Amino acid sequence: MAQKFSAPRGTQDLLPQDSYKWRFLERRLMEIAEAYGYREIRIPTFEHTELFIRSVGESTDVVGKEMYTFEDKGGRSITLRPEGTAGTVRAAIEHGLLAGAMPLRLCYLLSCFRYEKPQAGRLREFHQFGVECFGAADAAADAELIHLAGNILSGVGVRDLSLEINSIGCPTCRKAYLEKLRAYFQSHYDELCDTCKGRLETNPLRILDCKSPVCKAICEGAPVIVDSLCDDCKEHFRRLQEYLTAMDMPFTVNPHIVRGLDYYTRTVFEFVSGQIGAQGTVCGGGRYDGLVEEMGGNPTPGLGFGMGLERLMLVLEAQGVELPAQPTCDVYLAGIGDAASRRAFLLAQELKEDGLHAQSDLCGRGLKAQMKYADKIGAKYAVVLGDEELQSGTANLKNMLTGETTQVPIDGIGAAVTDGIMDRMLDEMTDDVDKEALSKLFGGMMK
Amino acid sequence: MAQKFSAPRGTQDLLPQDSYKWRFLERRLMEIAEAYGYREIRIPTFEHTELFIRSVGESTDVVGKEMYTFEDKGGRSITLRPEGTAGTVRAAIEHGLLAGAMPLRLCYLLSCFRYEKPQAGRLREFHQFGVECFGAADAAADAELIHLAGNILSGVGVRDLSLEINSIGCPTCRKAYLEKLRAYFQSHYDELCDTCKGRLETNPLRILDCKSPVCKAICEGAPVIVDSLCDDCKEHFRRLQEYLTAMDMPFTVNPHIVRGLDYYTRTVFEFVSGQIGAQGTVCGGGRYDGLVEEMGGNPTPGLGFGMGLERLMLVLEAQGVELPAQPTCDVYLAGIGDAASRRAFLLAQELKEDGLHAQSDLCGRGLKAQMKYADKIGAKYAVVLGDEELQSGTANLKNMLTGETTQVPIDGIGAAVTDGIMDRMLDEMTDDVDKEALSKLFGGMMK
Repeated sequence: MAQKFSAPRGTQDLLPQDSYKWRFLERRLMEIAEAYGYREIRIPTFEHTELFIRSVGESTDVVGKEMYTFEDKGGRSITLRPEGTAGTVRAAIEHGLLAGAMPLRLCYLLSCFRYEKPQAGRLREFHQFGVECFGAADAAADAELIHLAGNILSGVGVRDLSLEINSIGCPTCRKAYLEKLRAYFQSHYDELCDTCKGRLETNPLRILDCKSPVCKAICEGAPVIVDSLCDDCKEHFRRLQEYLTAMDMPFTVNPHIVRGLDYYTRTVFEFVSGQIGAQGTVCGGGRYDGLVEEMGGNPTPGLGFGMGLERLMLVLEAQGVELPAQPTCDVYLAGIGDAASRRAFLLAQELKEDGLHAQSDLCGRGLKAQMKYADKIGAKYAVVLGDEELQSGTANLKNMLTGETTQVPIDGIGAAVTDGIMDRMLDEMTDDVDKEALSKLFGGMMK
Repeated sequence: MAQKFSAPRGTQDLLPQDSYKWRFLERRLMEIAEAYGYREIRIPTFEHTELFIRSVGESTDVVGKEMYTFEDKGGRSITLRPEGTAGTVRAAIEHGLLAGAMPLRLCYLLSCFRYEKPQAGRLREFHQFGVECFGAADAAADAELIHLAGNILSGVGVRDLSLEINSIGCPTCRKAYLEKLRAYFQSHYDELCDTCKGRLETNPLRILDCKSPVCKAICEGAPVIVDSLCDDCKEHFRRLQEYLTAMDMPFTVNPHIVRGLDYYTRTVFEFVSGQIGAQGTVCGGGRYDGLVEEMGGNPTPGLGFGMGLERLMLVLEAQGVELPAQPTCDVYLAGIGDAASRRAFLLAQELKEDGLHAQSDLCGRGLKAQMKYADKIGAKYAVVLGDEELQSGTANLKNMLTGETTQVPIDGIGAAVTDGIMDRMLDEMTDDVDKEALSKLFGGMMK
């Protein structure tokens, strides 16, 4: 027996029974983002390693521990993207997008790669929907961004998420805060975990993110940054809260949200679910006013969020939200004998040219096995062609749901199936829709 | 000035002006494949390196020279997928998909990675649409597969592609052929390039793929495999041609098509365009009856194709095929003064909740700059709110295309914009559609 292969640890195949749901979800995300003026960008799967070190930050877990970094055959160090913002900012600068109409709004669907311990909702290759908005410094932009995230989450059917916001200030106020924070943690130095002892030097803010219970407990008593904000940051944060209230978006200020990446300034936020265990953040983001300049562009405010699609799916499942399933086969054309099987095959190809989902036998099966297959794939209609049918030019079309059969000309099978499907669609529609109007319309379109 | 970054060599950003076209194209590809019974699968970006060595073949250029292979932090050798078939077969075996209803039809949209010299239509990260069909040995399956490829290509608007087919036989007939071929090339040994001298030992079939002019010339006189096919393969190939003729698909038999991967058996085919230079193959594929077993599954016939999306886009461009552009902003809400700007902002969010693409100022701009921005983003309607409008509760809605203005209640802006857009849509439709029916229908749906 030959060796069997499996998917690399921490990666996942998305199988046909689920992929259609993902596609439906992704289309909804995009549609809603487009109504906010976002337009899709696609960036490469890998970037020069230096890009992530510069933007995400050398002292972060993502850069320090989790990156898929390697040398390509040309000796360059490249890294599979651990997140989408760095590459998007790089692309916006490189292609001069920031010189056009502002704000510039970009969105993307992409896979990201982090070498972490795999667990539910945390994969090594995971999928993210993200948006980035450039050129808008006002708190209204933060409010709009959070409104978009909330609208997307409710638009796909998620309920009961809580919105948590915080402000981590600008470099000016953060400097004062970091001193307070360092002094506080210094007084607990011996209790801190080894990682956090190191963080105390490089970036004490990161300690607030630590998962160790002891560090967590110490953090409870740590000074919070909202108390150290400068006047401008304070006013920005106040106006954001005012907008959220005016938009009927309930929120709580959670001073412990700092996000795991170095580039954030002022607003950070998360939408959190209590239903998917410890990895409860479904969407997180914030403002990064210094990042574009840091990466070689002109000073430009920016903000954005990322939404983990695996986690979003987990929440939807936990809440029993049903996403639509892929439509099944419209008609199966069975054949008995060489001539009729050939006719069934060719007719199936013709119907597919007209957009019907038609299938015929490709395995040289007998009639019984063919009908069993038609049943298995959930064909809506089936028809059997044999010598008799070829001679008479007519065949029996069977409605596989009701068992009803109708005699139709072989050339008219496509039309009969289309009509039948249309009728069923109309029956399934709610009374809100004017069925007569719809029927007239489709009739007109098909002429 | 900070360091500027660029995308890694051989990779490409897809910018907003093009991404919508890609999405449109991808949706069409999927829709057509679904009508043939294909269902989407998504596989990881990287696999265990051994998987590609086993399936694609050690002696191929892809495995020998072009793979992005590296060690992950756990010391495993992993490789960014250079093609989609190996991972799909691995997933089908791993998840038991081959034990369900056969044929099993899977399709995918993915990026692939090959370290090659970048040129037009050949990138290091490129994008592919692919399909794989398992469990169907009959030539009808090959015919249906080629019909699908042809229907997709014409369905997205491509014209003037030529279909070239070949049969490279089964292991039995290929053995006899390889001996003839080896003897032939042996007699030209001194003229062959160094790479091909090596190929003569490992896999002389590969010499037929060589790009060097001298080897190419030698290949012209080489024995062709169709002359060495065993009876079963000969009959399979004959029946494929019969089906193609019956389906009105013109083709030529090109004995030089061998495809660059080791797993093919019997049918191989390409759709070729003369309009995009040397890299003319837009779609290529074939049968691989031994691959599933080779990878640890039960013996199962298989076949599939891949379509390079960058090349498909090049052909569409060369042929002047227009893909739809992203719809622009429906309504821009300008504000003068704090209170009115705030109202404009909040109203924009409300309209977006209803699915309208609405925008308002996020940059603290004056009226003139706001209207300039509305113009730049191609807003269909614009409205200005000031203190006067807030007091009267009405505002002037401007049709940005005609310049016409209408006075509407502020609360009725959404409805007025929806009506206006609907009217324009109806006007732009052809006479085939029953406009009255459509209008009644939409009226019903919105109630």
